[in-house]
Amino acid sequence: MAIDSGATTQTPDFLHVSNAVVSSQPFAFVVGFVGAIAIVKAHKRDKTNALRKTKAVLRYFDAKGAAEVIRTLFAAAECDYEDFRYKFNMVENKPTIEKQHPLDKERGLFKQNLDRLPILEHSGMSVGQSKTIERYVARDLGLYGKNMAESWRIDAFAEHVRDVKDAWAKVRGNPFAPPDDDQIAKKEKWYNEDMTKWCERLEKVIENGEEGFVVGDKVSLADVVLYVTMTQTFDDAARAEKARESCPKMNKVIENVENLTGIQTWLASRPENRF
Amino acid sequence: MAIDSGATTQTPDFLHVSNAVVSSQPFAFVVGFVGAIAIVKAHKRDKTNALRKTKAVLRYFDAKGAAEVIRTLFAAAECDYEDFRYKFNMVENKPTIEKQHPLDKERGLFKQNLDRLPILEHSGMSVGQSKTIERYVARDLGLYGKNMAESWRIDAFAEHVRDVKDAWAKVRGNPFAPPDDDQIAKKEKWYNEDMTKWCERLEKVIENGEEGFVVGDKVSLADVVLYVTMTQTFDDAARAEKARESCPKMNKVIENVENLTGIQTWLASRPENRF
Repeated sequence: MAIDSGATTQTPDFLHVSNAVVSSQPFAFVVGFVGAIAIVKAHKRDKTNALRKTKAVLRYFDAKGAAEVIRTLFAAAECDYEDFRYKFNMVENKPTIEKQHPLDKERGLFKQNLDRLPILEHSGMSVGQSKTIERYVARDLGLYGKNMAESWRIDAFAEHVRDVKDAWAKVRGNPFAPPDDDQIAKKEKWYNEDMTKWCERLEKVIENGEEGFVVGDKVSLADVVLYVTMTQTFDDAARAEKARESCPKMNKVIENVENLTGIQTWLASRPENRF
Repeated sequence: MAIDSGATTQTPDFLHVSNAVVSSQPFAFVVGFVGAIAIVKAHKRDKTNALRKTKAVLRYFDAKGAAEVIRTLFAAAECDYEDFRYKFNMVENKPTIEKQHPLDKERGLFKQNLDRLPILEHSGMSVGQSKTIERYVARDLGLYGKNMAESWRIDAFAEHVRDVKDAWAKVRGNPFAPPDDDQIAKKEKWYNEDMTKWCERLEKVIENGEEGFVVGDKVSLADVVLYVTMTQTFDDAARAEKARESCPKMNKVIENVENLTGIQTWLASRPENRF
């Protein structure tokens, strides 16, 4: 296994330094200093992009639900992962899950999410809770801003969007139950009033409307959460789009995310799911 | 302002190194290497405990509500901050807020939380959303575990507890409205069944029950969130305590947090608030 290096080592001309400099104390000091910085930087780099080095497994149902933002983060960053889906059938408007699911639950695979899904398995770790996984993936793949100040505004924006989603969940009620009059009235009000109000509030805190980024000058968790929620959460896509027509900054952000190469690939290849 | 240092500098005996070593290349290399590491470490330290160096202002109502976990984090870490409270009066079971609140809202002080509270002002930044502020404060004050793996389990546990709180919020309904029969029945079920089930699920993911820490071997955001939620959220403290009597690990964590010096001081000095 020895490597044969027959060539004599010659310093190229442009690297010629006098022997006096090379053997001097200041030179050794600089070498030590620069070497240490390089080691620290490599160590720091090693802490991010771990998801690119070791492939993660995302376990969820064969549905968008609480996993779609996570999948879209992987897509936006063009990072490979295993998109493991437990299949289910709708029987009398209720989901019935395949046998593998209770078996894996019994084996303790879902423990870190209190026996629920989604779960992200990565490098021997099991990360539970969809929003925790979103933050984990976004931080690792560089979708959390370029400094602390940006990262907290991104974190808060994701929480704002979560408020919108929670408000919608109350309006929508149980998606598996047949709609009643009260629900229909609530949905009318949602699309006619509530949703536009929410969008206009979000619009005010979108910082870089010209380039179309919620925070800073690149895509982040904030943009991806906004994109998935606004385009894939509501049951009437056309009315949802109309509800945000008075929000040009938001629409620019959504367009930006949708135009990413990784997102285009994902939209073209992902399974068809109603929820 | 000059400092008079009359004494001649003499190297103590145990630090005696021969001149040959001091002027050598390896010595200079080591000095450079160690110097660089020290600078990097100081820089890193500088990024945490910023809240101890510059006092933050927490703006919220004169209530526990969405700010009490944040206040308790400051207390647990014994870190000073300004606990700014907008007073309100209850008029016909509805809160009426003092004039300063709409004025500050108009001035844009609450913008980063979509014109709502709480808001944390720190070092020229304005951080919105209660859970974002909790993560911000916990990370800065060393309440987020000692490595990445711990920090994600802490993050997920805080989300689990949030699920419990959300489930309770549905049961409780509007706290300002007079209780109806349906609500009373739901609360009965909560204290008799639901809450115990939640607690037993949480109990399973408490990792260090012997010493009484949710994750690792020191107090973290996970412990503080658990403590505040379990002891100060539910309207019947005695029944809430009974609901978790089968959870020794959880009770040990709660006891640990409550016994912290900073928490004892906080409990003795904080304002009386119903909510």
